Formats: sequence, C-alpha cells, structure tokens
Amino acid sequence: MEEIKVSGIFITIEGPDGAGKTSVINELYPRLQLLAKKGIIKTREPGGIRIAEKIRQIILDPRNEEMDERTEALLYAAARRQHLVEVILPALNEGKIIICDRFVDSSLAYQGAGRRIGMTEIAQINEFATEGTSPNFTLYLDVDSDTGLRRIQQNRAHQIDRLDSEGLEFHQRVRHAYLKIVEENPERIKRIDARMGLQEVVDQSFAAIVERFPDYFKGE
Amino acid sequence: MEEIKVSGIFITIEGPDGAGKTSVINELYPRLQLLAKKGIIKTREPGGIRIAEKIRQIILDPRNEEMDERTEALLYAAARRQHLVEVILPALNEGKIIICDRFVDSSLAYQGAGRRIGMTEIAQINEFATEGTSPNFTLYLDVDSDTGLRRIQQNRAHQIDRLDSEGLEFHQRVRHAYLKIVEENPERIKRIDARMGLQEVVDQSFAAIVERFPDYFKGE
Repeated sequence: MEEIKVSGIFITIEGPDGAGKTSVINELYPRLQLLAKKGIIKTREPGGIRIAEKIRQIILDPRNEEMDERTEALLYAAARRQHLVEVILPALNEGKIIICDRFVDSSLAYQGAGRRIGMTEIAQINEFATEGTSPNFTLYLDVDSDTGLRRIQQNRAHQIDRLDSEGLEFHQRVRHAYLKIVEENPERIKRIDARMGLQEVVDQSFAAIVERFPDYFKGE
Repeated sequence: MEEIKVSGIFITIEGPDGAGKTSVINELYPRLQLLAKKGIIKTREPGGIRIAEKIRQIILDPRNEEMDERTEALLYAAARRQHLVEVILPALNEGKIIICDRFVDSSLAYQGAGRRIGMTEIAQINEFATEGTSPNFTLYLDVDSDTGLRRIQQNRAHQIDRLDSEGLEFHQRVRHAYLKIVEENPERIKRIDARMGLQEVVDQSFAAIVERFPDYFKGE
C-alpha cells in the first residue's frame, strides 16, 4: 500500500445494538447529501466488497458454532481491511465525506469487551488492519442495555443471527466499553442520547456533523 | 480460552517452496509413527477444519486478485487460530507429538518479508492468533531460491495457485527471512540442507527429532 493523501472526511456512527443506528443513518444521509459540496457516500462493512462479503458470510453463518472468539476478531479485521482499501480510502482520496456504520470502535466494544478478548489486543490487530486510518469524527448513539435489547427483540425477531443471540450481560459489557472509549476520545467522539425519539436523534446528529465540518457543506 | 497444560510436543516443518517439505513429511511421518509412545499426528493448516478450510478458499481463489496483502495476512492468522484451537491444542493436551507442515515462521517469511509487510507486524497478529503457543522444535529445510523455483516449475506446472506465481526476488526475500529466523532461534530451529537427496534429508530430519525428544520414542 502506498500512503494516500487524505482530503475527505471519515465519519463513523457507533452504538450498541438497539441504538437505532440504521434508522438514524437512513434519515441523516439524504439531508447531508443535499448539502455536501464534494460528494458523500454511506457504507458499512462488508459493503458489497466481494472479499469482505465472503469473510462476513463465514462470521455470520449460524452453523459455525465452533468459531473461536479470536478467529472471529481476525476475520472482522480482515474484512475491515479490504473494505477500507476498496471503499473508504479511495473516497477519502476524492475529497468525499464517508458516513460509515461501525468501524474499529465496534470491535473494541464487541470483541474486546463483549467477548472479553481485551480491548488492547483488539486495538493491535485493528491497527494492523487500518495502518492508522482513524475516523475524523464519530457519533456514538448511546442507549442503555435494557432499552437496546428490548428494541432488538421487538424489531428483529425474524432475523436473529449468531451475534444477536447474546444475553444482557454481554450487551452491558459492550455499552460500558463504548462509554470508556467516548471518555478517552473526547475530541473525536460525540455522544448522543439515543433514547430520544428518532427525529430528535437525527436532528442532533445532523447539527453535530455540519457544525464540525462547515467547509464541507453548503449553507442551508 | 482457558490456559491448557501442554504435555505433548509441537514440531513444525518449514522451508521455502521447492524445499521438498511434503515429500519429506510423507517419508518421515510413518517412521516416527512406529516409535511414538503416546501417539503422533501430522497436520497442516487448514487441516480439514471447516472454518479454516473456508478461510483458505478465500485466500487461494485466483479470482480474488484485488486482495490486499494485509487482508491476506489476517486471513492466514484467522485460519491458523482455528486450526490451533481445534487440532493442535487438543493433541498437545493428550500428550501427542504433532508434526505440522508450516506455522508462524511461514507467515513471517512469506507475508512479512516476501510481501514486505514487515516481520514485526506479522509477528504481532500471529501472537494474537496463537496466544504464545510456539513450536517446541522446528526443522527448517533450506534450499536456495534458484533450486527451489526450478523444483516447483518441474513438479507443479499443473497446479499453480495465486501464491506460486511470484518471481525469483519474492522467493529470495522469503529465504533470506527464513535464514534470519533460524539465526535468531538457534535453540528452537534446526537447519537441514534440502539440496541433498530426499532420503538423506529424511534421515537427518528423523535423527534430529528422535535425538531431541528421546523420551517420546521407543528405542529402535
């Protein structure tokens, strides 16, 4: 990999299951798109990238019950790498805004804390995967674990995969880890209370991004 | 993963392409098997382990031309982890001898040096994958790159995969890295000159193992 000069902005949306990330991004993205001067894309791993999709199939296949937690963590890092190289870095290089649904923080919270591998060790393999590419800005949609789990059970009863089927304690460890990451990265991460109604969360997210990067958006 | 008390011995066979590892193991293994007191297995990643096999399919698929070197390295580490957990650790725990065709040293040489990712960085992700499980003994079958490449071209013209199709310089970097690893691990690794005839290489390999671990073998 050559080093690439980055001129776009890389924004990630993070949060525990049930925080409403997908709904928020679906409302937020068209509003940002209208104002983005040099283009904007939304993506999430594996993002239609052939190799990353194949890796993700292995991770999510419910038959792979024997998968070790560290194997899983390495596979996430591998899919992340390929998505980064094929989607994020080229878009950044074109000066675009990238809105990415989950990135390294998710692995720190889910694999590092949720599965108890250790956040430092997960950070190391992700450092290998990203070669230091970090989001310029992260919105952390915060929801307590009870509310989050209740929302998942209501909305996704028909499509539980290998990862959703974890218990309350797992989700509490994940949220606790996220709060620690927020505390340690006050410049990069903005916490938004995702127990509010969807419209309120979208409005706050929109304002946070536009205020942070005024040069990338036309005046409303 | 709980920590597992290890009572078997973990032996790896390493070497550049064309060193004749497979032929040597095929001759060496039955001879060791006759004398092993508590059982012996031979294996190589992905070793029939379902998840590891699926990962290896992604690595070797010639259509995956766009695969980034770091993605590949993470996939090797992931397959290694699963093979370790499902094959090597249980066998060690039963007191068996494991003869494993390639392990971390191969990744250091091929990904670290061959693909120029850096041996230190490859060591880090493999440390994550192995949690410190290292071979007790390694036979390094050494062959110069010209001889090695010539042997590959003669023997495998019908089954070249994505990795064999590298040039002489790549193979020279690989061998140079192996020699460095041997130099840095004089206790663990024994170098055997693999330009000799097969029988000579097998005899020396056999003697090296039996002399090193006399308690694990019946007297001849």
